[in-house]
Amino acid sequence: MELLRVDTLEEAREKLYRAVGEEWMKIREVPLEEALDKILAEDCFSVLDIPDFRRSMVDGYAVKAKDTMGAGENLPVFLKVIEDVAIGTEACSKIVPGTCAYVPTGGMIPEGADSCVMVEYCEAFDETQIAVYGAVSPGRNIVEQGEDCKKGSLLFARGTRIRPQEIGALAAEGFTSVKVFDAFRISIISTGDELTEPGTDRERGQIYDINTSALTALARKHGFVVCSRRTVKDEYDTLKRTVQEAMCTSDMVVISGGSSKGKKDMTAQVIDELAAPGVFTHGLALKPGKPTILGVDEQSRTLLIGLPGHPVAAMAVFEMLPVWLYQKLTGESKRPAIPAILQGNVPGTPGRKMLLFVELLPAQEGYLAKPVFGKSGLMSTMTRADGYAVIELNQEGLKTGEPIWVQVF
Amino acid sequence: MELLRVDTLEEAREKLYRAVGEEWMKIREVPLEEALDKILAEDCFSVLDIPDFRRSMVDGYAVKAKDTMGAGENLPVFLKVIEDVAIGTEACSKIVPGTCAYVPTGGMIPEGADSCVMVEYCEAFDETQIAVYGAVSPGRNIVEQGEDCKKGSLLFARGTRIRPQEIGALAAEGFTSVKVFDAFRISIISTGDELTEPGTDRERGQIYDINTSALTALARKHGFVVCSRRTVKDEYDTLKRTVQEAMCTSDMVVISGGSSKGKKDMTAQVIDELAAPGVFTHGLALKPGKPTILGVDEQSRTLLIGLPGHPVAAMAVFEMLPVWLYQKLTGESKRPAIPAILQGNVPGTPGRKMLLFVELLPAQEGYLAKPVFGKSGLMSTMTRADGYAVIELNQEGLKTGEPIWVQVF
Repeated sequence: MELLRVDTLEEAREKLYRAVGEEWMKIREVPLEEALDKILAEDCFSVLDIPDFRRSMVDGYAVKAKDTMGAGENLPVFLKVIEDVAIGTEACSKIVPGTCAYVPTGGMIPEGADSCVMVEYCEAFDETQIAVYGAVSPGRNIVEQGEDCKKGSLLFARGTRIRPQEIGALAAEGFTSVKVFDAFRISIISTGDELTEPGTDRERGQIYDINTSALTALARKHGFVVCSRRTVKDEYDTLKRTVQEAMCTSDMVVISGGSSKGKKDMTAQVIDELAAPGVFTHGLALKPGKPTILGVDEQSRTLLIGLPGHPVAAMAVFEMLPVWLYQKLTGESKRPAIPAILQGNVPGTPGRKMLLFVELLPAQEGYLAKPVFGKSGLMSTMTRADGYAVIELNQEGLKTGEPIWVQVF
Repeated sequence: MELLRVDTLEEAREKLYRAVGEEWMKIREVPLEEALDKILAEDCFSVLDIPDFRRSMVDGYAVKAKDTMGAGENLPVFLKVIEDVAIGTEACSKIVPGTCAYVPTGGMIPEGADSCVMVEYCEAFDETQIAVYGAVSPGRNIVEQGEDCKKGSLLFARGTRIRPQEIGALAAEGFTSVKVFDAFRISIISTGDELTEPGTDRERGQIYDINTSALTALARKHGFVVCSRRTVKDEYDTLKRTVQEAMCTSDMVVISGGSSKGKKDMTAQVIDELAAPGVFTHGLALKPGKPTILGVDEQSRTLLIGLPGHPVAAMAVFEMLPVWLYQKLTGESKRPAIPAILQGNVPGTPGRKMLLFVELLPAQEGYLAKPVFGKSGLMSTMTRADGYAVIELNQEGLKTGEPIWVQVF
């Protein structure tokens, strides 16, 4: 067990990434309708031209553009209508000079036609002919075959987060399922003799357990599956047994609590004992988040994380490590951060990276970021905030007017 | 049925809002663990001081700050330890000058103490006394009763979106459930003789139905419940019956398709017939999104929406109307938009508000927004985009270098 010095966030991340390895991620095929917000686990190639026929963008007449040259409001050209293409059917005619075919929006453009005149510019002349009162250029009002997507081209790369529009594009290609990365399966354990569950009786000096609820919600927000959640007393054997049980069903066991001296050691000892080859990070140069412990059991490939007991710190570290790990392993890009101008001076924290909680105040052409101050660990500092900025290690603090990037949470 | 002119987006929203009314929203009490991402339906007041006892922020000794005056590395002061407060229990002693009590992080500060000295600055001197090698000021390392949240104060206002930190704060107060706004219950119907379902055979000229999948995903992304989804042919009676059935179980029936002339009228007629007192918006001055139809059946209080057939336009209008309506009725604030600098010239659209799809390119202190161009209705214009900017009605277009706001989707 390395006890001597804390890791920087980057060191801890690097160790964590190496300890679990790329192959830690499981892949699963899901029906398209369950793919929302999942991350694609493989490159996805187009199997069809989209559209796979030349399609009209308007209700109108498919023509040869050349035939409409010179047509205008007072000088129509006359074309013979040789087909009325129904939506969803194949166009059979071949447009030759002097002829045209009616095509509805989304309908197939017959061979020989190179453009479409909107019905608004046409008028029935006799039973077989229309008068066209406007000229079109070639390609007008037509979507070419493969113009939206070419067959065989890369549709979406591995690591793409699937939004509604990706689902639409996959449906257009006829996909009914996709391969996505499995969610992390997480167990959440809160330890502390002072903890009681909300809704139960409480003795003076006890507090309601916050971390179980808050970390469960945070895990779910990021798409993870919470397979068990437990509140336990600060007893070595109970904690060890609970962690062992959780390891059987989880990719990751998160233990929060143990923020006082003796307890910290207990969580570290349990992790060290259950995760061979032992704890590799014991303390993080992060504010909040110092009392963080990491170990990976190589045999069961279970990640064990000891989080700080302070709810705010526990949530911050959860964002910085498990959430980061999922993004790293899936190749997903983070939600874009928001640029803002800092409103207030913020002292640096020598030797530690710091998460600064801020409120975003909309201004003329951007945001002002107002730091939310308060004693560390107060939940209200987090509920009053819209997001956080990361202030780098050893940075000498930030001054009013400096630009920062805010990650919304 | 008003057929003569299209509504601006604002007019359509105003009519929609008036037609459904505030009381359209249903309220439901949900267990705290199901409250994530829901919107609070009532102001939520604190029922407890948080913390409800003076709490130590460190492992240390609760003291009278005055007793530590002048203490330093080479000049300790000596204090008698009169209690060892266990976590989760009531402190019983009363600190008087010359005495102190051990308190772990999160433990209760005994009466009479006004600050806490970290154990790192203390040393056991004999069996009853410690040597203190550092001075503290009053209030140091203590969280005062109610400092995080005062009993009776407004914890969260109606309209607050419940994030993990709100769940944490509610758990701290002992809440096990909260009243939230019910999700919209939506039925999604796609019409079109050209549509086949992904995974089935397809004739030449037919296309896979995109809108059912894409709109379902979009609805779910915004927390709505999709209670039915159907693809139907362009037959008046079938469409009417399908809409009628859907109205029995839904707050809102969304019909997409009917983008060609004859079909548009069909959807409008069905809505006009089923939603007394009839269609109130027929056409929207929005690009994309013109062929939009709105009606509310006053008796069943069901909203009927005819969306454009083009998937991109259908999704855009869904964001602009149902999603907007939910935010309007719940009082929820939108996710913050992202300020960016436009990279490229964009022509305006006389008489229509326009949604411009953009890619966000991170730059030094903010983003460049690169317009994603392409023929209207191409799904790739939406999959390549990170979000959209709204370009106002009659605006003469935008030029490279102008600041815009981008809503990420």
